Amino acid sequence: MQYDFSEMIDRRHTDSVKWDVQDNELPMWVADMDFRTAPGIISAIKQKADGGIFGYEEVPAAYFEAVQHWYATEHNWTPHTDWMRFVTGVVPALSSAVRRLSHVGDNVLVQAPVYNIFYNSIVNNGRHALSSDLQFHAGAYAIDWDDLATKMAEPLTTMMILCNPHNPVGKVWTSADLQHIAELAATHHVTVFSDEIHGDITDAGHGYTPFAAVSDLAANLSVTAVSPSKTFNVAALHAATLIIPNENLRNQVDRGINTDELAEPNAFAIPGSIAAYTTGSQWVHELNATITANKQTLTTFVQQQLPELHVIAGHATYLVWIDCRDVTHDTQALCSAIRQTTGLFISAGAVYGGDGHDFVRINVACPPARLQDGLNRLAAGIHQFEQA
Amino acid sequence: MQYDFSEMIDRRHTDSVKWDVQDNELPMWVADMDFRTAPGIISAIKQKADGGIFGYEEVPAAYFEAVQHWYATEHNWTPHTDWMRFVTGVVPALSSAVRRLSHVGDNVLVQAPVYNIFYNSIVNNGRHALSSDLQFHAGAYAIDWDDLATKMAEPLTTMMILCNPHNPVGKVWTSADLQHIAELAATHHVTVFSDEIHGDITDAGHGYTPFAAVSDLAANLSVTAVSPSKTFNVAALHAATLIIPNENLRNQVDRGINTDELAEPNAFAIPGSIAAYTTGSQWVHELNATITANKQTLTTFVQQQLPELHVIAGHATYLVWIDCRDVTHDTQALCSAIRQTTGLFISAGAVYGGDGHDFVRINVACPPARLQDGLNRLAAGIHQFEQA
Repeated sequence: MQYDFSEMIDRRHTDSVKWDVQDNELPMWVADMDFRTAPGIISAIKQKADGGIFGYEEVPAAYFEAVQHWYATEHNWTPHTDWMRFVTGVVPALSSAVRRLSHVGDNVLVQAPVYNIFYNSIVNNGRHALSSDLQFHAGAYAIDWDDLATKMAEPLTTMMILCNPHNPVGKVWTSADLQHIAELAATHHVTVFSDEIHGDITDAGHGYTPFAAVSDLAANLSVTAVSPSKTFNVAALHAATLIIPNENLRNQVDRGINTDELAEPNAFAIPGSIAAYTTGSQWVHELNATITANKQTLTTFVQQQLPELHVIAGHATYLVWIDCRDVTHDTQALCSAIRQTTGLFISAGAVYGGDGHDFVRINVACPPARLQDGLNRLAAGIHQFEQA
Repeated sequence: MQYDFSEMIDRRHTDSVKWDVQDNELPMWVADMDFRTAPGIISAIKQKADGGIFGYEEVPAAYFEAVQHWYATEHNWTPHTDWMRFVTGVVPALSSAVRRLSHVGDNVLVQAPVYNIFYNSIVNNGRHALSSDLQFHAGAYAIDWDDLATKMAEPLTTMMILCNPHNPVGKVWTSADLQHIAELAATHHVTVFSDEIHGDITDAGHGYTPFAAVSDLAANLSVTAVSPSKTFNVAALHAATLIIPNENLRNQVDRGINTDELAEPNAFAIPGSIAAYTTGSQWVHELNATITANKQTLTTFVQQQLPELHVIAGHATYLVWIDCRDVTHDTQALCSAIRQTTGLFISAGAVYGGDGHDFVRINVACPPARLQDGLNRLAAGIHQFEQA
């Protein structure tokens, strides 16, 4: 390995949201990694800082070319640069798109359990969150196609938010899945917003398929959001890209992101992103190898030490979804107890909707030694909960 | 002087919006300075970059204490830290406040000629921009109090956007002016949003008075927006602060900035702002001395070389407002001609509304040598326009 993913960096008292915890606590919750980002990004930011003038910044062609290069080389998809718009983040852009592409009172379709902030973007803007819950059978999640078709067909359903790959269940959707969704969306006049922020984080040997890459049909009815945020641990770089092949849809969203002031980059977003997309490939491949190994470590540990839990096998994201129904159907209480007794801070699943109350989500994007600390705390916390 | 404001920095091809011009052109338009920012800010950003982890960032107490310290020491006003909210920019926050504090179809009151982007924040959100135009007499602007009272009293007028100090006319409002506005606003149930982004840029020996500092009455019905953006030339730091003494008003705006995703800082906004507000005082005082001298240079040059123009004397901002009515009532045509013949790019006044079509706005925040280049081009451009 060319890069070091084992360094134990102390992030306490650095204004980190993740690490705003008590001294004895270990946070493995929010999607934020404990790794220093790729060196090329740090260099690019420092070079921009050295310039010393941070006036109004525009987005150069080189930015869009870097995004295109990344998707072509990493994901075998070459979106046109003129389909792209810079935005300050995926979630702000999602909220803006909800306001532009649906109306107050409409249904926005999601697939619970899913990233909880989607609900905020829907509900805070006066729309209804309508879920076609993923079906959980024999340890795996799948789409209930009849249910999805029924809910797409409701006249008030005008938009769907796809999570590709899916957080928190870690699932990589197949091309067939994505094409089926596109066909239903086309039939029922539903616009698909595909959040692909976790797309780069896949197990070694596995990839993901961008929604818009599966067909012209999918491309024409979708807004795809990508970002170096999760991939390179740069949430606070405030950089993301919308890819919108359909010109009319692009113009509508473009109007929204400008009115909502999401289209102007901070001084470091552009150089940081260009560096990520043009110099970060090897770093990401090594990161993925590290995460794959961490997920295997967790899975083996749970099988051996905590057989009452069941790890859901997923090939994407650094978030592991664990079935706790043999311990409790109220994982919020379980997580509170674990935090209280061991200091381990993990995410209870109820906020993701659907059957989430039976699950916990654990963030394994940390050095192996820190993961081991977390697993030991998890076992102790579960055992104490069971004995209480 | 401890700092060098004479260095001629080449900003072409740096993704600067201001400097996205032809090679022979000289931009003196958008409010962005040609000075490198204060060294403490650059150091703080590089120190944060060295940390190398840019995950989700929260706003520490030290940030609000730094803002408080700055207003206490620079402007003799000590706002409570719990009145403050971090936001990613004054304009995004203004747009959000318009959505939260007024309704579709309401009037939002402004005082034309005024910063043109105010109109966007009003009109793009479906409100009406209602102007109580500033009255221009004997080379100076003043408020028409009867007109302002009449327009405040309209039932649909629910909000006023105050520009304090006033861009583009450079006027510092007196405490008496501000108190009078507060009294009218209280009588007519109008919320005042006071944009004080230019407040730190005042002529040597002159200060400005924050709106909320004049009285409890003013404090209780207002949202004040401040930022290091103009002061330190860090528009792309994406950092600003709302100061809202009234708890109910604060809660409403707080809800808006969170829904609109304006409350989370990028990785550099907090350390950069803290450095600005705690180490930047001397730099700003020297900056103001430089700008004061530049304004005097421009005024003398115009008196001697271009007596047909009339510089409006203002004690705030680095933007100079020049009356061109003895040359033309269509300064858009004049500015286009000047740019065409000399490459000088200045702002035509019509976009600011009111009597702006008679004026041009020139940005003098640049090294004296660059200013002289601009003045020579201005004289040549005016003379050619007059002979055409």
